[in-house]
Order: sequence, then C-alpha cells, then structure tokens
Amino acid sequence: QMTFDPEIFFNVLLPPIIFHAGYSLKKKHFFQNLGSILTYAFLGTAISCIVIGLIMYGFVKVMIHAGQLKNGDFHFTDCLFFGSLLSATDPVTVLAIFHELHVDPDLYTLLFGESVLNDAVAIVLTYILSIISPALISNCFVSTCFFNSFISVFLGLFCTVFFTGQLLFPLTHLPHLTKFTKLCEFPMLETGLFFLLSWSAFLSAEAAGLTGIVAVLFCGVTQAHYTYNNLSSDSKMRTKQLFEFMNFLAENVIFCYMGLALFTFQNHIFNALFILGAFLATFVARACNIYPLSFLLNLGRKHKIPWNFQHMMMFSGLRGAIAFALAIRDTDSQPKQMVLTTTLLIVFFTVWVFGGGTTPMLTWLQIR
Amino acid sequence: QMTFDPEIFFNVLLPPIIFHAGYSLKKKHFFQNLGSILTYAFLGTAISCIVIGLIMYGFVKVMIHAGQLKNGDFHFTDCLFFGSLLSATDPVTVLAIFHELHVDPDLYTLLFGESVLNDAVAIVLTYILSIISPALISNCFVSTCFFNSFISVFLGLFCTVFFTGQLLFPLTHLPHLTKFTKLCEFPMLETGLFFLLSWSAFLSAEAAGLTGIVAVLFCGVTQAHYTYNNLSSDSKMRTKQLFEFMNFLAENVIFCYMGLALFTFQNHIFNALFILGAFLATFVARACNIYPLSFLLNLGRKHKIPWNFQHMMMFSGLRGAIAFALAIRDTDSQPKQMVLTTTLLIVFFTVWVFGGGTTPMLTWLQIR
Repeated sequence: QMTFDPEIFFNVLLPPIIFHAGYSLKKKHFFQNLGSILTYAFLGTAISCIVIGLIMYGFVKVMIHAGQLKNGDFHFTDCLFFGSLLSATDPVTVLAIFHELHVDPDLYTLLFGESVLNDAVAIVLTYILSIISPALISNCFVSTCFFNSFISVFLGLFCTVFFTGQLLFPLTHLPHLTKFTKLCEFPMLETGLFFLLSWSAFLSAEAAGLTGIVAVLFCGVTQAHYTYNNLSSDSKMRTKQLFEFMNFLAENVIFCYMGLALFTFQNHIFNALFILGAFLATFVARACNIYPLSFLLNLGRKHKIPWNFQHMMMFSGLRGAIAFALAIRDTDSQPKQMVLTTTLLIVFFTVWVFGGGTTPMLTWLQIR
Repeated sequence: QMTFDPEIFFNVLLPPIIFHAGYSLKKKHFFQNLGSILTYAFLGTAISCIVIGLIMYGFVKVMIHAGQLKNGDFHFTDCLFFGSLLSATDPVTVLAIFHELHVDPDLYTLLFGESVLNDAVAIVLTYILSIISPALISNCFVSTCFFNSFISVFLGLFCTVFFTGQLLFPLTHLPHLTKFTKLCEFPMLETGLFFLLSWSAFLSAEAAGLTGIVAVLFCGVTQAHYTYNNLSSDSKMRTKQLFEFMNFLAENVIFCYMGLALFTFQNHIFNALFILGAFLATFVARACNIYPLSFLLNLGRKHKIPWNFQHMMMFSGLRGAIAFALAIRDTDSQPKQMVLTTTLLIVFFTVWVFGGGTTPMLTWLQIR
C-alpha cells in the first residue's frame, strides 16, 4: 500500500511548515496590518466555512433528489467539515512569485498573514467539527446544530489560542537563556536548544490535548520576535536556513504524496455533481470572504485596500497541503472519501491554474 | 518504559553521524595518511576484536570456574561479538579539543580517519558475528570457528565495501547533475536533492541487504570529493551546516539515551569480574593495536609517527555511541545483557576520564 499514517502529517510534516511560516513573518508589515489579517483569518475563514457548508448542503439535497446519494449519508456537519477544511488557503506559489517580483509588501503581508493564520483556524474548526458532529447527528435539527457548532467553534478556538499562548510562557525563558548566558559562544548548542525548545512547544501542547499546530505557529512568531534578536549571528543564519530547509522538504513531500494519493488511493469516489458544487462553493465562499470584509476594513484603514488588490486576493485562494492533510485524516466513511477526492481535485486545479496564472494576473491587474 | 527501538539508532540516528564523518573529512591530510588510516582501521580493529575476544574468553572460563556463570552460557563467539563492538572507537571529545587547540593535523587525521572507518568495520564485524554465531555454536570447536569467522568476516567486509561502492554509482550522477544543469540557481532545491540522494544511498543499501552505514560513509566521502565542489556557494554552506547540525543532534540524543539506559534499563547484570576483564581487555587490545602497527607503519612512512603521538593515540581510545548502539541492538539473552551493562560502563569511564584528561595529557606528552 502506497499510503502512510495521516498522523505523520500532523506530527512530522506540518509542524515545520507552520513554524517556518511564523518564524519568517515580516514583523513590521505584519503588525501594521494585524487588524486586517485577523479579520480575514478569523472572520473570513468562518464565513468561508459556512458559505461552503451551505452551498454543499444544497448540492447534497440535489444529489439525494437525483438518487445519487442516500438520505442520511451526508449530514450538514459533514458539509461544514468540508467547508472548514477547504477554508485553509495556501498560496505558496503566489507568494513565491510575489517574493521574486518584489510586489507591494502590504499585499504580500495581507496574503501571507491570512494564509498562515487561517491554516490554524481551519485546523481548529475541523477538529471541533469532527468532535461535535456525532453528538449533533443524532439530533439533526439544522438551525440548532448550526448555532451550537458556531458558538462552540468560536469558544473552542478562543480557548485553544489562549491556552497555547499560556503554554508558551516557559518558552519565553529561551530569550533570557540566550541573552543572559554565554550560550551564544556555542552556536551549535544554541541552534540545538532553539530547535528542541520550539519542538517542545508542539509536543507539550499535543500532550495537553490542545492543538500543537496553533502552539507551534505562535511559538514561531514569538521566537522570531524575542529569541531571534538575542541569537549569535551564526545561529541566526543556522536557524533560518534549517527551518527554511525543513519547510521546503516537508512541503515537497506533501505535494509528492498528493500526486501519489490521486492515483493510488483505493477508495476514490468521483461524483460530478459534488465536484461541480465544491468548485462553485470554493469561489463563491472566497468572494464572500474577500469583498465584504475588504469593504468593511476600508472604512477604518488609512491605506485603503484598492480594488486590484482585492481581485488579486480573490485570485490567490489556492488550496494546498493543509486541506489535503485534513481531508486524508479520516477516510472511513463514504462522504469522507468523496471529500478527499474532491479536495485533491480542487488542490490540483487551484495550484495549476491560479498558481500558473499569477504573473499574467499581476500584469493584467496592473499591480506591477 | 523509557526505551526505544534499537533499530532507530541504525536507521535514524547513526546515518547522519556517519555521513557527517565522511562529509567533513579533510581530504588532503586524509589521502596523505590513507595507508596508515586503513591499517589502523582494518587490521587494528581486527586485532582489537580478537584480543578482546581472547581475554574475555579467559575471564569467562575463570567465571565459570568460580561458579558465577554456567558452562555454555557464554560462547567464544559471544566474546568475539563483545570484542567487535568494543573496537569501535569514538574520540569525539578528543577531536573537539584537538580542533580547538589546532593540534598537529597529521595526528588529528590519523585519529579521525581511524575512528570513522573503524566504526564501519566494527559494525560489519558485529553484524557478521551475530549471523554466523548460531551456526558455529552447535559445533563449538574453537580453532575452526575462529578461523572460519575470521575468513568470513574479511570476505564479508570486502564484499560489503565493494558492493556499496558499486551502489554509489548512480550517485555519481549527482556531480553531473550539479555541474551540467542550472540547479545551482536554486540552492534550496540543490540542498534538498543532495540530502535526499545521500539518504537514498543508505536506503538502497539497506533494501539490498547490505550495511547502509558503510554505504552512507562512502557516500559522504564521495559527495565531499566530487559533488561538493560543484555546488553553489549557498548550498555548500547549507549542506555543511545541515549535516553538522544533524550530527550534533543525533550524537546528543544518543548520549542522553545512554545516560537514561544506565539507570532505567531493567535487566542490567553487573558482574565485577566481567567488568574488570573488559576494562583490562580494552586497554590491552588498544595497546596491541597501536604500538605494533605504528612500528610496522614507521618502517614505510616518510613522516614517522613519533612516540608521543602513539601514546596519544593509545590514550584516545574512547568508546561511544556506536559501541552502545551495537550492544543495545540485542539484549535478549543473559550474556548480551552483561555485555550491554559493561559497554555502558566502559563508555562512561573512557569518555569522562580520557575525554577529561585530554588537555593535561597533550601538555604532558609535549604535543602542544
């Protein structure tokens, strides 16, 4: 069998990617745009999740009507689950091109910040939905279920972020360790401690039953903010290059594995109507996320987000490794298998078409 | 239980250490002293293995006489097995101090080259002994067994090195790949390929039933010799630092685990007579290795190996990670448990006493 345990994604491959994302945040622009980024990441992801969930629920009803699906196979929570995992955008190609072409730093930061944080949000959403959905299915009264899940998701999200924030407290000793000792004379030891303590943030969060991914993201941000400045110049370079390399390797492994999974996964369920619905839902949800929120944000921002930036953000809604990893985590039931197949197709389509179309799009929108 | 699968040593922790050893060989001095290094590593390790085996066999006879051991528990092949695993020297502390103090490069290279190659030799010896010993025990006629094992060991060793040399053939495409393509414009990709292809040498050797450790050592040497010079300057630094870091981490994990194993391993068998014998055997074997071989080598060398260098080499016979990893691989029977306990004690004693005594010894021998 050409598969490996999906837990490997969450314990081995994702942490370096997420940590690197946090560690390489450009702080100045990030904190300048923090309000907008948080709005897109939290509110936007919630909107995206619900819109995709609702549209897919409509398509599921149509499929049941057309006899392609049995009633009771695909619950509303399954639709929301699909919505939450498809909300994790991953514009890695777009950002690489932006970086290459030195596109406007505000646009870069908005997209990058959104994509980093909404991964965490999507992971927490998916996790909470997978926990509460069995309880809700038995009492499938849509509006109650909807309301309940919405509240629990946000409470859960808040608590997780809050507690992982607390978890990081021991880690703030690392800046002290690097600042007030002679550790900087042994860059190798310094790098080793840096690596192990960052990893321990992930492990301790997982051991405490929280989401390690969120912990590792915030750990990356705080490490970059506090510890990085106290490192020796040798360690600065070492840690940067190490995490860059680990990120590169992990991302490539995931993309290779996605290619394999498309052809070797045994239980693919291709359903034209479902796939059509998913593509439609993805684009509608992205539009419902970007345009209304940008409008609201522009009311308060000094530097408005112009129309062409909004179109570019709309266009950069690539789906990637996280969506795939969340989809492959659970493929026991038929709906989940359908979700995996559809997610894979959406990932490949968005990466190839939107990723490949970035440069022409930038020219067309007169951003460069 | 505070233990992990010993196979993790051989598949995860040792390959980076051995690869790094090969990759960081100082080529000029290494190839100048190649004859001496090979003599110490191959002939010296064989002498060491046999001397330790014979002395331990004597002690085992005494123990049987004293009623501390049943007849038939501890065969001659077990003694040879113990001898082979104790032949892997690992003067990591000594070399670190040499590096710091810029001690004579010839002495450094001799010690470093010997320790790198004799790890591989000891691993192969141990492997072959563990394979042939069940067959030999049934017909425990010492002299035949001794002769047979000696021949098979050397044939096996030769074949392994030869075949792993062949295995490296596809890897020599990597220098071509790095030389004749524009790969060097993408240092991250270059580093990634370098890492993965080096690892694939290990994996393909293991898959073919050969010893991956030997493959990865020679892979490291050839990569440093051919590929390294064709890398972009960015990749040169990246690969060096990456493997340095992995080596550092793996070595520290092993030493931490050794400390744990000393206190948490459930089946320690401390036998004073056996431990005494092992310490005696270790020192006698090191002397039988260094002094006669140095005498023979000095007959042919232009730059003679002076007496104080010989004493320093004698003193630098630290045992380390490899000996421990080989001992913990098999702890099913009582003799093997006794071997593990004794190996751990020898490792700690040599690392603390000899490692700590390096600087005074260098002064006393007037090397610096």
